[in-house]
Amino acid sequence: MHKLVLIRHGESTWNLENRFTGWTDVDLTPTGVSQAMSAGKLLKAEGYEFDLAYTSVLKRAIHTLWYCLDEMDCTWLPVQKSWRLNERHYGALQGLNKADMAKQYGDAQVLVWRRSYDTPPPALEAADPRCERSDRRYAGMDAQNVPLTECLKDTVARVLPFWNDTMAPAIRSGQRVVVAAHGNSIRALVKYLDNISDDAIVGLNIPNGIPLVYELDDDLRPIRHYYLGDAEAAARAAAAVASQGKA
Amino acid sequence: MHKLVLIRHGESTWNLENRFTGWTDVDLTPTGVSQAMSAGKLLKAEGYEFDLAYTSVLKRAIHTLWYCLDEMDCTWLPVQKSWRLNERHYGALQGLNKADMAKQYGDAQVLVWRRSYDTPPPALEAADPRCERSDRRYAGMDAQNVPLTECLKDTVARVLPFWNDTMAPAIRSGQRVVVAAHGNSIRALVKYLDNISDDAIVGLNIPNGIPLVYELDDDLRPIRHYYLGDAEAAARAAAAVASQGKA
Repeated sequence: MHKLVLIRHGESTWNLENRFTGWTDVDLTPTGVSQAMSAGKLLKAEGYEFDLAYTSVLKRAIHTLWYCLDEMDCTWLPVQKSWRLNERHYGALQGLNKADMAKQYGDAQVLVWRRSYDTPPPALEAADPRCERSDRRYAGMDAQNVPLTECLKDTVARVLPFWNDTMAPAIRSGQRVVVAAHGNSIRALVKYLDNISDDAIVGLNIPNGIPLVYELDDDLRPIRHYYLGDAEAAARAAAAVASQGKA
Repeated sequence: MHKLVLIRHGESTWNLENRFTGWTDVDLTPTGVSQAMSAGKLLKAEGYEFDLAYTSVLKRAIHTLWYCLDEMDCTWLPVQKSWRLNERHYGALQGLNKADMAKQYGDAQVLVWRRSYDTPPPALEAADPRCERSDRRYAGMDAQNVPLTECLKDTVARVLPFWNDTMAPAIRSGQRVVVAAHGNSIRALVKYLDNISDDAIVGLNIPNGIPLVYELDDDLRPIRHYYLGDAEAAARAAAAVASQGKA
């Protein structure tokens, strides 16, 4: 039996300001730092040990991982960073306030942008200063592959190659893996692992900074999954995520 | 022309207490954190950009790198950690006070232990609780390769394969590399790069947290090298390192 631990980054400055973040590289708030440290303390208290860590190329996830590793006293763990674990790209909504958008376009439209499986938000213009195509960290990629917007289906399509080519072989070989990533890159993984339908995934929310454990069989099929620590607190935190896009 | 930047970790708790550290995994002091941040600020101010970072599996070097990357806003850089960049193993001296040892055995003996090229300090017993052979981070290694003591010659012997197999090919391919490591793993690299004799290397000291830049030609032969920032401060800091082993 394999255990895979998924951690959404702690609260970011734009989570706090209720803004669409996507690929914008905002940092953790003090609350987010404290959530990340709590996640590490919890993993340590529960006796978790890892051989390998994955994270995105966005600092809110990287810092979350670093605080966890610090708390577990295993900063020496190999860490692989990949843009494929980045948050879903939020297109032209990046930087805008979720509640403002709900007032302007209605809760229903914002729910579509936030949670529709296959309708992406309006795309960024490539010339928009917010566009990441000139960002050095993506220089190794074909510019066409740096998204201008994504729906969750697009995120799944770029997360899965990372699962298939990198994570799954490592887990199958017996490595114990922790992933610090984002609401939607984790939703993409969970959708695949639990074979959740395109409709049902709309209702799935991932709280910040609470380790989500997947127990997987030898074929990496989920046996069960659970949040570490206080289950009710995790459920409340997930519900709070769900309500962020309301006016 | 290639630029390679080497940074010895900031002051550690055992630097401050003047204890032999070696492979013991002690953390940075507040001064060490501040040195690491200054190194990052200096690199940023001087316009340095990197594609790749290397560090040891010891937290004083890892944290130094993390603070640098934070200051340069490039936490997303790929980081490879290797035990081959660890500090020289100090054998049975690990944890003991340098000045106490000088009082007990004399300055000359301590200088031999600290700086002799080919005389290692007394070895740790494999059963000594300080021995790292049971440490999980070295579990992938043949136990026989986890040292019980090292002279600088031994350190050179295990650093060079990392240079030849990993660092040199990366630099040759045009990647801009920063290394956060330790006094003696950096001395090992510098001895090799500058072809310093076994006798002359005794007088070379690396100060904490000051970026040391090597400009290398296409064959990775050094053109010149220099410390970033205040050259006199770097020289004073190196001299202070040299005097640590005196009674």
